Amino acid sequence: MSNKYVYLFSEGNANMRNLLGGKGANLAEMTNIGLPVPQGFTVTTEACTKYYEDGKTLSQEVIDQILEGLKKIEEIDNKKFGDKNNPLLVSVRSGARASMPGMMDTVLNLGLNDEVVEGLATLTNNPRFAYDSYRRFIQMFSDVVMGLDKSKFERIIDQMKEERGIKLDIEFSADDLKLMAQKFKDFYKEQMKEDFPQEPVHQLIEAVKAVFRSWDNPRANYYRRMNDIPSSWGTAVNVQTMVFGNMGETSGTGVAFTRNPSTGEKKLYGEYLMNAQGEDVVAGIRTPNPISLLETQNPELYAQFTKICKTLEDHYNDMQDMEFTIEKGKLYMLQTRNGKRTAHAALKIAVDLVNEGRISQDQALLMIDPKQLDALLHPQFNSQDLKASKVIANGLPASPGAAAGKIVFTAQRAKELAANKNKVVLVRLETSPEDIEGMAVSEGVLTARGGMTSHAAVVARGMGTACVAGCSALVVNEEEHYCTIAGQRFNEGDEISIDGSTGNVYGNLVKTEPASVSGDFATIMEWADKRRALEVRTNADNPKDAQVAYNFGAQGIGLCRTEHMFFDADRIPAVREMIVSSTVEEREKALSKLLPMQRKDFIGLYKAMKGQPVTIRFLDPPLHEFLPHTDEEIRDLAKDMGLTFEKLKNTVESLHEFNPMMGHRGLRLAVTYPEIARMQTRAVIEAALTVKKEDGYDIHPEIMIPLTCEAKEFNYVRNIVQETADEVIKESGEKLTYKIGTMIEIPRAALTADEIAKTAEFFSFGTNDLTQMTFGFSRDDAGKFLGAYYDKKLFDSDPFAHLDQVGVGKLVDMACKLGRSTRPDIKLGICGEHGGDPQSIDFCHRVGLTYVSCSPYRVPIARLAAAQANIKNPK
Amino acid sequence: MSNKYVYLFSEGNANMRNLLGGKGANLAEMTNIGLPVPQGFTVTTEACTKYYEDGKTLSQEVIDQILEGLKKIEEIDNKKFGDKNNPLLVSVRSGARASMPGMMDTVLNLGLNDEVVEGLATLTNNPRFAYDSYRRFIQMFSDVVMGLDKSKFERIIDQMKEERGIKLDIEFSADDLKLMAQKFKDFYKEQMKEDFPQEPVHQLIEAVKAVFRSWDNPRANYYRRMNDIPSSWGTAVNVQTMVFGNMGETSGTGVAFTRNPSTGEKKLYGEYLMNAQGEDVVAGIRTPNPISLLETQNPELYAQFTKICKTLEDHYNDMQDMEFTIEKGKLYMLQTRNGKRTAHAALKIAVDLVNEGRISQDQALLMIDPKQLDALLHPQFNSQDLKASKVIANGLPASPGAAAGKIVFTAQRAKELAANKNKVVLVRLETSPEDIEGMAVSEGVLTARGGMTSHAAVVARGMGTACVAGCSALVVNEEEHYCTIAGQRFNEGDEISIDGSTGNVYGNLVKTEPASVSGDFATIMEWADKRRALEVRTNADNPKDAQVAYNFGAQGIGLCRTEHMFFDADRIPAVREMIVSSTVEEREKALSKLLPMQRKDFIGLYKAMKGQPVTIRFLDPPLHEFLPHTDEEIRDLAKDMGLTFEKLKNTVESLHEFNPMMGHRGLRLAVTYPEIARMQTRAVIEAALTVKKEDGYDIHPEIMIPLTCEAKEFNYVRNIVQETADEVIKESGEKLTYKIGTMIEIPRAALTADEIAKTAEFFSFGTNDLTQMTFGFSRDDAGKFLGAYYDKKLFDSDPFAHLDQVGVGKLVDMACKLGRSTRPDIKLGICGEHGGDPQSIDFCHRVGLTYVSCSPYRVPIARLAAAQANIKNPK
Repeated sequence: MSNKYVYLFSEGNANMRNLLGGKGANLAEMTNIGLPVPQGFTVTTEACTKYYEDGKTLSQEVIDQILEGLKKIEEIDNKKFGDKNNPLLVSVRSGARASMPGMMDTVLNLGLNDEVVEGLATLTNNPRFAYDSYRRFIQMFSDVVMGLDKSKFERIIDQMKEERGIKLDIEFSADDLKLMAQKFKDFYKEQMKEDFPQEPVHQLIEAVKAVFRSWDNPRANYYRRMNDIPSSWGTAVNVQTMVFGNMGETSGTGVAFTRNPSTGEKKLYGEYLMNAQGEDVVAGIRTPNPISLLETQNPELYAQFTKICKTLEDHYNDMQDMEFTIEKGKLYMLQTRNGKRTAHAALKIAVDLVNEGRISQDQALLMIDPKQLDALLHPQFNSQDLKASKVIANGLPASPGAAAGKIVFTAQRAKELAANKNKVVLVRLETSPEDIEGMAVSEGVLTARGGMTSHAAVVARGMGTACVAGCSALVVNEEEHYCTIAGQRFNEGDEISIDGSTGNVYGNLVKTEPASVSGDFATIMEWADKRRALEVRTNADNPKDAQVAYNFGAQGIGLCRTEHMFFDADRIPAVREMIVSSTVEEREKALSKLLPMQRKDFIGLYKAMKGQPVTIRFLDPPLHEFLPHTDEEIRDLAKDMGLTFEKLKNTVESLHEFNPMMGHRGLRLAVTYPEIARMQTRAVIEAALTVKKEDGYDIHPEIMIPLTCEAKEFNYVRNIVQETADEVIKESGEKLTYKIGTMIEIPRAALTADEIAKTAEFFSFGTNDLTQMTFGFSRDDAGKFLGAYYDKKLFDSDPFAHLDQVGVGKLVDMACKLGRSTRPDIKLGICGEHGGDPQSIDFCHRVGLTYVSCSPYRVPIARLAAAQANIKNPK
Repeated sequence: MSNKYVYLFSEGNANMRNLLGGKGANLAEMTNIGLPVPQGFTVTTEACTKYYEDGKTLSQEVIDQILEGLKKIEEIDNKKFGDKNNPLLVSVRSGARASMPGMMDTVLNLGLNDEVVEGLATLTNNPRFAYDSYRRFIQMFSDVVMGLDKSKFERIIDQMKEERGIKLDIEFSADDLKLMAQKFKDFYKEQMKEDFPQEPVHQLIEAVKAVFRSWDNPRANYYRRMNDIPSSWGTAVNVQTMVFGNMGETSGTGVAFTRNPSTGEKKLYGEYLMNAQGEDVVAGIRTPNPISLLETQNPELYAQFTKICKTLEDHYNDMQDMEFTIEKGKLYMLQTRNGKRTAHAALKIAVDLVNEGRISQDQALLMIDPKQLDALLHPQFNSQDLKASKVIANGLPASPGAAAGKIVFTAQRAKELAANKNKVVLVRLETSPEDIEGMAVSEGVLTARGGMTSHAAVVARGMGTACVAGCSALVVNEEEHYCTIAGQRFNEGDEISIDGSTGNVYGNLVKTEPASVSGDFATIMEWADKRRALEVRTNADNPKDAQVAYNFGAQGIGLCRTEHMFFDADRIPAVREMIVSSTVEEREKALSKLLPMQRKDFIGLYKAMKGQPVTIRFLDPPLHEFLPHTDEEIRDLAKDMGLTFEKLKNTVESLHEFNPMMGHRGLRLAVTYPEIARMQTRAVIEAALTVKKEDGYDIHPEIMIPLTCEAKEFNYVRNIVQETADEVIKESGEKLTYKIGTMIEIPRAALTADEIAKTAEFFSFGTNDLTQMTFGFSRDDAGKFLGAYYDKKLFDSDPFAHLDQVGVGKLVDMACKLGRSTRPDIKLGICGEHGGDPQSIDFCHRVGLTYVSCSPYRVPIARLAAAQANIKNPK
């Protein structure tokens, strides 16, 4: 049985996107609905997969089908491939299932050779056009198919310009271009030790192979990884009869959108050039005309075009992005696709399409990429100001948003300047937990080291603070309070701007504008809320973040990390006092200093959330994180604490761990020091009683025990919490209900979830740690080898960005089922960073979680993603 | 419905051990078969469990049943509890399901009070006996039931001796003892603020509660943890009519074994004392008589006793350990149980019982505790020499065996002295990977720090080298080459001995004797091999270990850790050269130096195993383990390597990891540096071809890829290995088959084992790492908190010692099933330390593994445990 690897455009349709790629499927669809499309055929994505399976060779079966397709096109067009008297020329273009603009290769004007070019010159009576096409073909073919660097050909062109004293390509005469083609062929022969291929069929087959090959080029691989496109999909190849927009003043070419892709306005938008080819529109040598001018220039053709636009939008019920060519007064459609658009436009178009009665609310919700909303949730640069500014360096876009302010090099200085109403940008080699307060008061954070999951990146994303990380052009001299960025020196107080969405760094102050959720955005959110099954909570450790999340529609706090409160300057002395305590009494004394502060924190959170549930996770990190590590710092601190250097040094050393990730942390701290859990319980409950009394909110605290791996261990801590909580409630004479649950972040907890659920009232999946333990690599260390894993296609995506549904997901699913088997109404949530990732949210919906919890700035994204998950997975 | 919590001895039998405890069940059984047993009743283990469930109180239901039982005993004995004219006195003893000698409490002579003691004096016409019994009872009751320290009563006795100028207890007169009882009661009142209880029923109930309470005392908890006895079992309590061996010269008491518990010889063995109580035999004040003397002293009674011994051995078909008392010429049996025995005796008795036709081979195999064999597999101290030596300190028994030699403080010095035929003991603060060679040439290793799973302990166990770890009395001064042990100074070259089976340290040279597997041991091993389904392989990294394992019956190597070879002094320079390489070429150059050395290693292993399968695991640890870490060491090494300090320091820093356990190691190294895998493959295959040619063995190398977490990742490395292997084989023109498989040691590998098994020909479960990842704690760090987990009974046993069947086991079972689902004939093994643990081996048998692999000295243990697993789990 032989497979069909080649489809004529007339054989396909829009639903065959997986097989024909987006471009091929839409060319077929346009053909079917009778639009003027230059005919051709599509070599399928399956042929691409086969090409790779066959060790990067094109099987005879596929070649035969291509040649057969070619024959049919010759019949349709009544032209002949390689015939000098009536030549068929084709373009060979990539077209994957998902659009990957500019990532893969294209060859135009294929079918030309020394003979055919002569015929074309005669036939068109336009030798300049013919030789220009030929030299372009030689250049493209050499580059794309044979790997001869395009710039080497440019050098020949530059040389000829110099000889002739001209500046622009269009100044070349027909003879110049003929000579240029010859020079190109000579250069080709010199480099390749063989003549430039004259056999059109050979050219075609090689070009198809080159497009398949380009699927695997580094930039395509990078793009796919960034956009979660599996490398197994492959690309299709479209072979299409060439039409020429450069055959004189009645020819032209252009691109158009049925609606404005920047604003979403319902108005034809685009531009075109007469007597030009597609690449000229892009090249910017001539300024294209707005599409509206075509109405004046050629009303009939404009009418035909607008009718086609309407047909296409009516057909696809979405904004279309089209390419067209006019050859000697005749209009051809070369491409249509659902147009890319800004987040603003996406919301407006979706709402408009519903209002126009074209699509349902569900369809509108599915139309918007939740990730795109991110752009609307952070401060943005003023666009005027931005135009006047220069990018001086680039780093990783680690936490979105625009930030501008005075440079500071220490967290301390950030706090000082911010206290005087200065906007500051914290610039550091890398950040550490002690910098948290400084980060919180900064507009943005710029670091020289660290990746997308570095401390700076993770904390900044959590805070919604802009962050550019790993900016290699940045050299920081902290001691002397200056830095250089790409060689330019900046002192403390100098102004700088960073864009956490692009990674750009500007050497001046660029004004910023705040975000707002209103208009179409609000409408979409309202529709999403009606359609989602998952609740959306937020990860917030302070009232400010809680307030942001509440405004963005969070339905509670899913994770409050109490240790972040421990790092505050006014608490850390008491925390350290607790750590160096040698007896329970000493420890309790230190904890009693922390109690009123924690209580105050929780009061702030409860008030911000106005009675919504608040989940508080008890102390999680290993205690050594709260102590300094160099002898000098230890000496200073010992002096401050009134301890000997030796005593403090011993404490630091005794807390040293080989693998802190897998050390004495989480509820293990509560097992060894139950008094810590008692203090935290008291703070949680007392705060709830206070707010209940003061504000009348019916608070339901949820106490979350981290790092459980065994039911007995959880029960031990749970009992301590319950005893303390009941005691505090009894003391108060009030009534209060609360829940005690656990994180599921250790594989064994997932495997024994049925036992744990006997006493745990809720589970919250800590998928950051669960991912680390399940894969057996730590986030801090994996950066060193994950690059090789992406390059070698061993991982499709970063398991810390998208939940690994195969492995980690299996544990999550198992834990959900086991948990419900002993407690059918168990509350299930997720509070890892995956809680804000749309494809992970889809998974959460499918396994039946109650809620996802994400950072405040991801709440709207999660609301939309949750709605999409429910729509995509009907019960 | 009310439960039965009290059984008369006549109501029970030997099969009711779980309910009645071992002692109670055997007392019942002896009663049933008509032996002379003082009657009584057993309060069940369920009553104990209920006692704890009821918040450590004895319910009225249980008390009522006890009193009813008491009434029946009064009827049987025709005596009355608390009656001065005809008093019933009882003993109250613990008796758990498994024997826990000396761990729990006992009260004798219960039922005495101020009145009854008078009656007893009159009745027996022996006031001395009566008051001696009373003062003993007061002392025991105060200690066991009321928690008054026994030593405080001893002080009163000492004071009285001083006043009277006597030395021995037996020198006290009846009046002295009467006075002593009074002083004891006075002291009791002073301490407890109340009179010593005079009400016998009150005494009884309090004593029963005290025995239940003693189930939870620290030493019992410790014993249970060491012996894997679940704390949920609880203890029973036996209340038995007192009989007295101290009523004069026609009374006596003794213990006897039906066979010699040291040698296994089939001959009655035991000792007795006339006119004495059980504790006098133990106390050592008088020297007991050998049991054979009883024949002369009282032939009739001796005949009765030997008949009973025979009856019991015939009944139980095992060597019995019995306690008896003679009261006024009448013999009473107080206890029988299967006697504890040495490993030697265990083997001899088991073989003898089969030869005597008493039991089947299967029963014989089940009779021997596999762990006991360990004692036979290591060098032992000469017993004469040992008697003359003094224990000067004690540490953890980290790796069994006896070792004696000259003290050395560095691995280097160990090698120097060993090269000159000196026997050395390496004494260190703690060991590190660089010490491995030094450890290998030492007789034993003694460390001041570290636990049972410290580097020293793990490596020493692997090598079969004796090790005492964490000896807190040891202070090492490495720089000045001396140490002190419990204050005594030892210089380099001074002699010392350590016993890795007990943790004892001796300050002199104690002669050692080597192990041998022959005679009964060989017979049992032969029977075991016939009955087991699991193969037994060994973990061995060098020909010496491989040879030991082969001699102990290993059927192949299940794990050869190639990194151990990398640490050798002659290799590490090339390893380091490879690590600092900046290009593939440099790395390949360094690797080419390692190739001949690795090849030689493998040739040695293949030869030692004589054609049996050899599984070679590729490089596993993170590379920084091969580099020094202090600036000083880095400076020295940089000089040696001809590098700048900065260059080497940079390399060290770039390799630093936050969590090395979860870092750049295992096959991740092969993904980033495929050339390492290529070199190792070449060495494995070339060595196999060489040995095949030279020795004619048909070698089947098994190449094992460590740390897989994803099928694609495994395939990537697998393909490199296969290409290289096939190339080498092709070059040679020979034929060779080999297998490529993987470790399953990361949870995700277990979860996706079906995918991995598509190309992996075998799995070997690395349950050390799998346990770490599944529990989320690292072995190196867990020591800090696991103590609290045992104290609080959150873990029953160390998951690194016994495979956690609930959590980790679930992953193993899942991986076996998934693996077989895609490759039904997949070879499944285990090579973590659990591979040598009998209860883990039982699990391995049940999930259907093909083999277990353990350290050489555990091979015979595993062979027996595998046979037991097959017998205990019939298909």
